[in-house]
Amino acid sequence: MGEGRGVSDPRRVITAQIGETRYPIRLGAGAIADLGGRWPESVSGDAVLLVYDENVAHIAKSVRESVERAGKRVSLAPVAPGEPSKSLSSVERLCRDAARAGIRRRDGVVAVGGGVLGDLAGFVAAAYQRGIGLIHVPTSLLAMVDSAVGGKTGVDLPEGKNYVGAIWQPAMVVMDTSALDSLPARELSCGFAEVIKYGLLDGPELFGLVEGWPRLPGPHDALVDLIQRCVEHKLRVVAADERDLGMRATLNLGHTIGHGIEAAAGYARYQHGEAISLGLLAALRISSHLTGLPESWRDRTQAVIARHDLPVRLDPEVGTAEILDAAKRDKKADGRALNMVVLEDVGVPSINADPAQSLVAAAIEELRE
Amino acid sequence: MGEGRGVSDPRRVITAQIGETRYPIRLGAGAIADLGGRWPESVSGDAVLLVYDENVAHIAKSVRESVERAGKRVSLAPVAPGEPSKSLSSVERLCRDAARAGIRRRDGVVAVGGGVLGDLAGFVAAAYQRGIGLIHVPTSLLAMVDSAVGGKTGVDLPEGKNYVGAIWQPAMVVMDTSALDSLPARELSCGFAEVIKYGLLDGPELFGLVEGWPRLPGPHDALVDLIQRCVEHKLRVVAADERDLGMRATLNLGHTIGHGIEAAAGYARYQHGEAISLGLLAALRISSHLTGLPESWRDRTQAVIARHDLPVRLDPEVGTAEILDAAKRDKKADGRALNMVVLEDVGVPSINADPAQSLVAAAIEELRE
Repeated sequence: MGEGRGVSDPRRVITAQIGETRYPIRLGAGAIADLGGRWPESVSGDAVLLVYDENVAHIAKSVRESVERAGKRVSLAPVAPGEPSKSLSSVERLCRDAARAGIRRRDGVVAVGGGVLGDLAGFVAAAYQRGIGLIHVPTSLLAMVDSAVGGKTGVDLPEGKNYVGAIWQPAMVVMDTSALDSLPARELSCGFAEVIKYGLLDGPELFGLVEGWPRLPGPHDALVDLIQRCVEHKLRVVAADERDLGMRATLNLGHTIGHGIEAAAGYARYQHGEAISLGLLAALRISSHLTGLPESWRDRTQAVIARHDLPVRLDPEVGTAEILDAAKRDKKADGRALNMVVLEDVGVPSINADPAQSLVAAAIEELRE
Repeated sequence: MGEGRGVSDPRRVITAQIGETRYPIRLGAGAIADLGGRWPESVSGDAVLLVYDENVAHIAKSVRESVERAGKRVSLAPVAPGEPSKSLSSVERLCRDAARAGIRRRDGVVAVGGGVLGDLAGFVAAAYQRGIGLIHVPTSLLAMVDSAVGGKTGVDLPEGKNYVGAIWQPAMVVMDTSALDSLPARELSCGFAEVIKYGLLDGPELFGLVEGWPRLPGPHDALVDLIQRCVEHKLRVVAADERDLGMRATLNLGHTIGHGIEAAAGYARYQHGEAISLGLLAALRISSHLTGLPESWRDRTQAVIARHDLPVRLDPEVGTAEILDAAKRDKKADGRALNMVVLEDVGVPSINADPAQSLVAAAIEELRE
């Protein structure tokens, strides 16, 4: 894994500092080969539960070899791909696997996969024996820029996504950009939707970089820079609001309507990043109405979204009323207010906006034009 | 509930400070009637999931009335008594109850019951939407002096007790000593086993108070004092070691062999406090061998245990080898070492003792004499 790009590759170590917790995020091609050698001291036991998405078994194999070279005993726990694995029954199965593998409080969980796998395995690490060491090895662009950073873990209930979970910071995150080489194009694009979100949240400079991005994945050195910029943005926000009681909500830009679209379409028609693309466009339209954000930002965002094969038109079969209902049920909506994130300007998000329902409906309808 | 003792009853507020978390523990007869009026500001939502043990439905009713008087909307979630309720399937059921009741992130869980109920409902509060407010209303002596203090929550796996859980501090604890009036005598005695443990850990003064205790529950004012002394001891230890990586382990005095006895007897013959009584006697014998603790402490402890109808003799049908095996499997035992707590003196515990197996076996055998 990853050694094909050679020793001249840029490698970065970003230090996350969340409250009293401090951990390294190792970023660059070949980072997995180094994983065992860089094993965090705080995970001092000699046993590891390696939880991985069956779709990335080849990457999990490289992780296993690196961890075993560091003298650890590795037990394998494969997980079926897809959102249905994010359940309490998966948590029970994996915790029992850990118990039977003799995993103890000073041992660790290594999570290899995308957002679903990281959320699930992260919660297992948070809850097993009231919390053991966790090492995230995100293998998708989405997981690298978003879900593997910040400590949110969790599983779904029939009543809603991420309804059961924990805030549990990892002891280390290893982002090997070589993993993206084998990622399907649609998955890459979906991750890029979150990158576009960071551009809008961070400011015109990062947005400009995103806007000028060539075909995905793009030049490797530049990609490492881009991931680093997104991760650093997220870490700044999370450090200020780990438990998501205030400004961390800005990271939900595009997600209120995006989640509504995902749910109204039965989690089938749109992948997460695709729904978020549409949600971003609606949020920008609503921002223009509420804050006077220049409409040109929506046009420019639409152009980036379209260039990376993400949707800019909403399927007519997904109804506006259903989207609105689902958005209101979303756990991020408090009571009847939608509590949306809007932009006062690119780089200046504002939380707890409560636009009139007619305005939200119009912004959704506009996605059909 | 609780008002029968009148307004002259002693009421105490102990302030717990664990890391950056600070919360009140309200102690005294009639504290439940005040619960709604003293509702913590940090739990600012208007909905409450009231999780209660069906055995204390009458107390849950008083809690509900008090919370409703404070203007909260209360949804009821009864739980069957007994250890089998401490399961991930109970967690799933209660989280789904919470979702269907519209419980949101700023709302709260109120946990009414003994140790099992508090551990279960506490973990639900820790995990639902990644953590919501929790108010413990312990209704047993064991829960008041031990399990409702310190933030440990969790459920069992077939592989071991408390294998899945979280450290989650409550926003308030309400200990209404009137609740003890309806507690079966055997339950009171079992709670007293933990009180005896605190006497041994805290020092000769508290041990003397415990040693001179009359028939349970004893004079009400003195009982409030006694509970306060135990709670304050536990809070001091937890404040120094919330995540149980060091001195918090002292609170396991008597529990290594005690858990071994419980498990070897199939969790049927002995209640927790009864097994702990035997475990304390064995730990004192082992302490005498390892640290020179005067043997008179074991004799005095045995006399207190016997006076409160707790066992001082081990059932011959529970085998020593089975107890040793179960103690080694206990999650508090790290690898092959038993990591026992011993006393250098009363009030001077020491952790990570690793007595020879023959010594432990002899201490268990002595319980049969």
